[in-house]
Amino acid sequence: MTETGKTLLRARAAAPRLAALGTEDKNACLAAMARSLAGGADRILSANAEDVAAARGRLSASMIDRLTLDEKRIRGMADGILEVAALPDPVGLELESFERPNGLSISKVSVPLGVVGIIYESRPNVTSDAAALCFKSGNVCVLKPGSDALRSCAAITELLRGAAEPYGLADAVCVLTGAEGSRAAAAELMNATGLVDVLIPRGGAGLIKACVENSKVPCIQTGTGICHVYVDGRADFSMALDIIDNAKTQRPSVCNAEEVLLVSRDVAADFLPLLSARLRDARSAAGKTPVELILDTEAARIISGTPAGPGDFDTEFLDYKLAVGVVADVREAVSHIAAHSTRHSDCIVTDDPEAAEYFLNAVDSAAVYHNASTRFTDGGEFGLGCEIGISTQKLHARGPMGLRELTSYKYVVRGKGQTR
Amino acid sequence: MTETGKTLLRARAAAPRLAALGTEDKNACLAAMARSLAGGADRILSANAEDVAAARGRLSASMIDRLTLDEKRIRGMADGILEVAALPDPVGLELESFERPNGLSISKVSVPLGVVGIIYESRPNVTSDAAALCFKSGNVCVLKPGSDALRSCAAITELLRGAAEPYGLADAVCVLTGAEGSRAAAAELMNATGLVDVLIPRGGAGLIKACVENSKVPCIQTGTGICHVYVDGRADFSMALDIIDNAKTQRPSVCNAEEVLLVSRDVAADFLPLLSARLRDARSAAGKTPVELILDTEAARIISGTPAGPGDFDTEFLDYKLAVGVVADVREAVSHIAAHSTRHSDCIVTDDPEAAEYFLNAVDSAAVYHNASTRFTDGGEFGLGCEIGISTQKLHARGPMGLRELTSYKYVVRGKGQTR
Repeated sequence: MTETGKTLLRARAAAPRLAALGTEDKNACLAAMARSLAGGADRILSANAEDVAAARGRLSASMIDRLTLDEKRIRGMADGILEVAALPDPVGLELESFERPNGLSISKVSVPLGVVGIIYESRPNVTSDAAALCFKSGNVCVLKPGSDALRSCAAITELLRGAAEPYGLADAVCVLTGAEGSRAAAAELMNATGLVDVLIPRGGAGLIKACVENSKVPCIQTGTGICHVYVDGRADFSMALDIIDNAKTQRPSVCNAEEVLLVSRDVAADFLPLLSARLRDARSAAGKTPVELILDTEAARIISGTPAGPGDFDTEFLDYKLAVGVVADVREAVSHIAAHSTRHSDCIVTDDPEAAEYFLNAVDSAAVYHNASTRFTDGGEFGLGCEIGISTQKLHARGPMGLRELTSYKYVVRGKGQTR
Repeated sequence: MTETGKTLLRARAAAPRLAALGTEDKNACLAAMARSLAGGADRILSANAEDVAAARGRLSASMIDRLTLDEKRIRGMADGILEVAALPDPVGLELESFERPNGLSISKVSVPLGVVGIIYESRPNVTSDAAALCFKSGNVCVLKPGSDALRSCAAITELLRGAAEPYGLADAVCVLTGAEGSRAAAAELMNATGLVDVLIPRGGAGLIKACVENSKVPCIQTGTGICHVYVDGRADFSMALDIIDNAKTQRPSVCNAEEVLLVSRDVAADFLPLLSARLRDARSAAGKTPVELILDTEAARIISGTPAGPGDFDTEFLDYKLAVGVVADVREAVSHIAAHSTRHSDCIVTDDPEAAEYFLNAVDSAAVYHNASTRFTDGGEFGLGCEIGISTQKLHARGPMGLRELTSYKYVVRGKGQTR
């Protein structure tokens, strides 16, 4: 049996023990994990230095930045664990209960999913975030970090496991070190039906696609966001500019950033010059990176910019680039979004309540906005307290996934000898 | 493009139109579908006669019985559609709503899944059942019947589509006739990510395994049930016998029937002779099929029966067969179930509240029972009014899936220009 196979068996075996652990013990163990991380900062930093040294010259500067830990980031990881400990326990809740005419009493009770696999890339902090969210929701996690972050993640998980040891639950946090190769370990995790209950990939579009297409374990599709803002014929221009500016430039590298702007033909000639002034001229004048405007034929007749090529309205730029198109009205905007959106977050800016309701109903995305930035699609901003990812699929959970979305339920049926 | 590919595109295109249809129109259309089926009974019967003739000699008698329709069964199908029409509309419900400190108003609203693929076998009535459940929940269905039932299903869907035509929604009910071959059509359906939102296989263990392992479209694992009854040391013997008899013999061919009996060592010597008398002697005397008892070593020392072979405690017999084992106590029963159950439905019979609570908590199945037959795991019996299947996985839905389990949700966010 491979190392991965042995780890998966230990994870499965730990699942019922963790599921049986009470809220107080879970919180105490999470607090011990946070202390353990803070106390072991030196070990983490020295492992991380090795990862960073090995990555130099091979990874881009921004990837190395994601990989690099310092004291402050480690404190942030420890604080993150304490924040999760402070959230309400999502398991053991009676979600519904009813009595049937035959006297059967039926309760629907929240339970952990069981064993949750997390495949991620080079951010070492995902290790403690995911471990804490899974632990609090009663789930054993099997972490599969990218090979670039392996030493850092091994050091972090060792500290977390040490803190769970006194509870007999070191195996509540498992890591696939990929002794037999990173790809082989990932493949084994994706094939581990019966041992792993759900797989959550966290990372770029390529990783997510590979998991969705290859995993036999049920997989939650997260992340990729081609988010739209539609400026309606009755939009408040100043509000529209604020929303677009925020959705595009506040943090362009994230999935809830805007990638496409659609403008109603009624107002395009008036609005687009304002857009160009705000996203290019004003930003340049302020010493900020101007946004590259990638224009369809009609927009290009109104303002200057890069002519849109095939695929530009289907690209998650994650950069200071915005595809801009002109549409007839809200109906054409909805059709465009249906054809090009990744169903993450899409927004209409309008003062027309009818157009707004039409858009909110007809756009089939995890989050639909009227007069607010798409950047709010986030577990913290939605008040979930945390998130393990943002689901762009429709099964199980949609949008930001917090602790509750890491649970399933079971029906508990109590009878007095009833038969059918 | 294949015929299947064209059908899938039509299905996708119909999804937003069906999602926008109001409750009254949906119900009126369902009533028209029921009338259309009843009025077209002759066409269905003649298509069905061809299917049955082609199946003779090739399929078993019980398979041919499942395949065969008569006036009464067609009336039952039409009535089933009307029952679904009478259920509450599961979409458009505000599941939650809250306001954030920044003034954003967020509602979580139930929405259809979109396009639901159903792969099934030779029961033609699944065609109208699944179509009605999907339609009521605002989902376009893409039906892939087994090749044995193809003519019957084509006749049924033609009548359903005809009834939906006046609403511009004939494509709300699509059927894959498999012009390019039944397997090729199924494979194309399983690969149709982006066009199909979820796949629900309905049928035997082989079909379900093939879907779960091969589908790139998210798939809900349904059905297979290796259900256990555990007779505790403090069980009421008479209640235990009633429950076991019901769970095993009332309808042995279904997934919520009992396949394994575990008996506490404390009472095995007293209880097993009563079991043998009830399930074998009394049934034989009444002219009913006796239940074959397949015994582990310890049970075989107490009563006569077939010695259990390897795999007998991991088999869904769907027949008058029951694997019987002796365990030390409720803890060993729970461990046995963890190792052998398909996580469908498992029961403890006991008068000891502590043992009952331990079992209900520790057994990780969709439905866990205290003192009632496992046969109650059913959408109708749980009060859902209907069911599209019984999920044995933990993502999305668990246990009986009714209309509500055919929905997802989206977050509707209303603002006044908020940015982050």
